Amino acid sequence: MAQNVYDNPEFFDGYSRLLRSRQGLDGMPEWPALRAMLPPLAGLRVVDLGCGFGWFCRWASEAGASEVLGLDVSANMLARARETTSDPAIAYRQADLETVDLAPAAFDLAHSALALHYIGNLPRLLAAVHRALVPGGSFVFSAEHPLYTAQGPDYLDEGPRTSDWLAKGVMKQHRTLATLLNLLIEAGFALRHVEEWGPTREQMAAHPEWKIEHRQPSFLLVSARR
Amino acid sequence: MAQNVYDNPEFFDGYSRLLRSRQGLDGMPEWPALRAMLPPLAGLRVVDLGCGFGWFCRWASEAGASEVLGLDVSANMLARARETTSDPAIAYRQADLETVDLAPAAFDLAHSALALHYIGNLPRLLAAVHRALVPGGSFVFSAEHPLYTAQGPDYLDEGPRTSDWLAKGVMKQHRTLATLLNLLIEAGFALRHVEEWGPTREQMAAHPEWKIEHRQPSFLLVSARR
Repeated sequence: MAQNVYDNPEFFDGYSRLLRSRQGLDGMPEWPALRAMLPPLAGLRVVDLGCGFGWFCRWASEAGASEVLGLDVSANMLARARETTSDPAIAYRQADLETVDLAPAAFDLAHSALALHYIGNLPRLLAAVHRALVPGGSFVFSAEHPLYTAQGPDYLDEGPRTSDWLAKGVMKQHRTLATLLNLLIEAGFALRHVEEWGPTREQMAAHPEWKIEHRQPSFLLVSARR
Repeated sequence: MAQNVYDNPEFFDGYSRLLRSRQGLDGMPEWPALRAMLPPLAGLRVVDLGCGFGWFCRWASEAGASEVLGLDVSANMLARARETTSDPAIAYRQADLETVDLAPAAFDLAHSALALHYIGNLPRLLAAVHRALVPGGSFVFSAEHPLYTAQGPDYLDEGPRTSDWLAKGVMKQHRTLATLLNLLIEAGFALRHVEEWGPTREQMAAHPEWKIEHRQPSFLLVSARR
């Protein structure tokens, strides 16, 4: 089972205070870039891998998705997600992305925000997502950028990294950008767009503290097609 | 016209002394990885973009290619390339990759070693390569890794960079890895494999001075299909 750090009270408390937890998508500076990589949502069946508080699920339903399934390993986060909506198009399910099973060809779009860098067996998950999409379906995700997960100069040394972000001993998986892309290709995906996210000039003017991110990207955004 | 630094006597003299110039493919530590990304050469029509002294052209002909066209902007390098072979399957032509025209669907494989980071109008060149390949044809290339062409921390600031490598004022183009891949996708290529090259354990044992490259990759290797 994956480390379920979101059900660690110390982590959950810290995470809940982040701008992106309080403001949702509008508190995520990379959201406009990720949104631009999504297909039109009208009528799509959507699965969100690592849905957290459900911000994306609610947005997707409002944007016209016909069904939205939010998956998360954290009972705490799912409880909060369920409290914030009575939308019948949205369902939440507790699931460990290391072992999740998804019905074949059940979705037109798979989305994931900042979850894949926690996954140890990424080839297994990518195969499950590929199977769960219809042919031509889209997989659009963000992840921590490999220059960030490297946690230092040993970029080419792949493997688990432990950090003390919000709680002690949070484990993430460092993979190079090439490895991430090759795993997608080997799972059968066609790459459509890759973005190494840095703030726009407007965002930097409003948030001078983001200057560091203009030098080295924090987020990797990818759009791929089954 | 592209900066033709290889016809600068100081640069040419320095370049000619490099291990990779004296030993050819065997002096290029990234060659085994790049070779592994090539299709079987038997019967293929091959174009080499930035062929230099012709090491790859001669190897491709020996590996069974039916025709090999080597292109380079440098008269000095082409003169040396022509001196070293009388193979009738190989032709050399002086061409500026910024403006080169190639016959449509004339090649099964396009190869380029460490040339694309000199190109200002890369979309134009990629369109020309795409047109020059038959459907299903391969484009396999190496380039300086974006972390290397960045020449410092401003990775996300793309554009020309000037360095004093072998001669003063050598100009290269810094593009992020995402931009390079997106330009390939936009030109119509399907990405097949991406490699951020670092030396193997065996290579590091034999060349301790390459240790730095295990931390941060120097070369980007890409295989794509028309």
